[in-house]
Amino acid sequence: MTTLKRIALGLQYDGLPWKGYQTQPSGETVQDQLQLALRHFTQTDIHTTCAGRTDAGVHALEQVVHFDTGLQRDPYSWVNGVNSFLPRSIAVRWAADVTRAEDEEGFHARFSARARTYHYMLYNNAIRAPLLAGRAGWVFRPLDLERLRAGASHLLGTHDFSAFRASECQAKSPVKDMQRIDIVRSGDMILFTLRASAFLHHMVRNIVGSLIFVGSGRREPHWIKEVLEGRDREKAAPTFMPDGLYLARVDYEPHWQLPQQESVLPW
Amino acid sequence: MTTLKRIALGLQYDGLPWKGYQTQPSGETVQDQLQLALRHFTQTDIHTTCAGRTDAGVHALEQVVHFDTGLQRDPYSWVNGVNSFLPRSIAVRWAADVTRAEDEEGFHARFSARARTYHYMLYNNAIRAPLLAGRAGWVFRPLDLERLRAGASHLLGTHDFSAFRASECQAKSPVKDMQRIDIVRSGDMILFTLRASAFLHHMVRNIVGSLIFVGSGRREPHWIKEVLEGRDREKAAPTFMPDGLYLARVDYEPHWQLPQQESVLPW
Repeated sequence: MTTLKRIALGLQYDGLPWKGYQTQPSGETVQDQLQLALRHFTQTDIHTTCAGRTDAGVHALEQVVHFDTGLQRDPYSWVNGVNSFLPRSIAVRWAADVTRAEDEEGFHARFSARARTYHYMLYNNAIRAPLLAGRAGWVFRPLDLERLRAGASHLLGTHDFSAFRASECQAKSPVKDMQRIDIVRSGDMILFTLRASAFLHHMVRNIVGSLIFVGSGRREPHWIKEVLEGRDREKAAPTFMPDGLYLARVDYEPHWQLPQQESVLPW
Repeated sequence: MTTLKRIALGLQYDGLPWKGYQTQPSGETVQDQLQLALRHFTQTDIHTTCAGRTDAGVHALEQVVHFDTGLQRDPYSWVNGVNSFLPRSIAVRWAADVTRAEDEEGFHARFSARARTYHYMLYNNAIRAPLLAGRAGWVFRPLDLERLRAGASHLLGTHDFSAFRASECQAKSPVKDMQRIDIVRSGDMILFTLRASAFLHHMVRNIVGSLIFVGSGRREPHWIKEVLEGRDREKAAPTFMPDGLYLARVDYEPHWQLPQQESVLPW
């Protein structure tokens, strides 16, 4: 009898070259590349499960993935072995053995997650910045930080977020708990940090797009409350570009003892 | 009789997609892309001269370029007009009319330059960072900041830099004045800032490569002085990867009144 190990990985990637996280027949996704590298490294087929799928062009500072395997490798070996088969736009940052006895609750990258944190990085300058292409959104009209924050304050707490939900969203419920929205400026960069129990499809990009309407003066901060309460996707702003969106952090119960890293941008 | 205007541009680019700055028959260079955009915008052929050519994979926060034209456009129009024809990895950040009377000394992007400043961004962590691929060099061995600084101190002042000069370098003299080398750490990032009257071909990458030998403990700081004084390229470390190299700033006399921007990384 083979005892299966359950392994969790912290995965960082540049989303620009890939057609999103989730596997596709073309193979041009992050999950396909990860599973290909796992196959090269282990000479076995390994299916992976992630905390949250990201769209094409969306990055991850720390996506969390789990899989089961009959192989015995130490965490260091999983990290370096898999990385040697991954393209340079994807890397395993850490690995952890989260195997539990059969009568204990097992770790699941998606279902064990307690909260997700996303960053949206926005470049706010009259002229575009080539070195940020694909890495940050760009708004050439000046944005007022206090207006952005006033608009965002209406989103804190537990709400039905249907107004910011993509039509193709598969979530069971549109009710989510928004625990934190921080908006800070550093020079020409504006960094949004949003933490919620979970996010609907396109939710961060739809929220950021609507907050930009407020920050530029096109709408008043109170408009965000009206949009939220209207629960009508048509009332909110268009989905903003994926370029500046980063899955920054997935939170789990401390007892899993994952060697997670600070959810900061690497520069 | 047409009066020619001389226009200076501040150019920012991601060097990763291009085969260096200088024009090549393939057309896959920054200069070729800039001249193509100028032709589309002006319907005339315009030849450009830059402050300093950069190699394949090397970035510019602010390259300076000049050209002559019989056309009258205001600076705002040069910026936005040319940008609308440039790929997203290249952008004009500012334009300035530097026309002078025939009996005055004219502006020249290369010959009027008084100093150049380069950044080298280095990621120092056991695991590579996919979001920094092509944007920062990577060293997985821990580097000691004080050793890096002690090694660098030997390079300050006026020296014959033949030890750090590529064999294909076309500079008339290997003697340059190194005015500044700052090395700072922020988290896992180490940022080198070097300012000199001018640089030899591969000089920054050769210096950074040699300093890494010192920072990792493979050589003592005093070895940098020995290499410098030996004037023998074979004694220094190999040319380090281009990924983290940025032409940050070119200095001119203040009377040119160029609208130059802070030479900081945009994030």
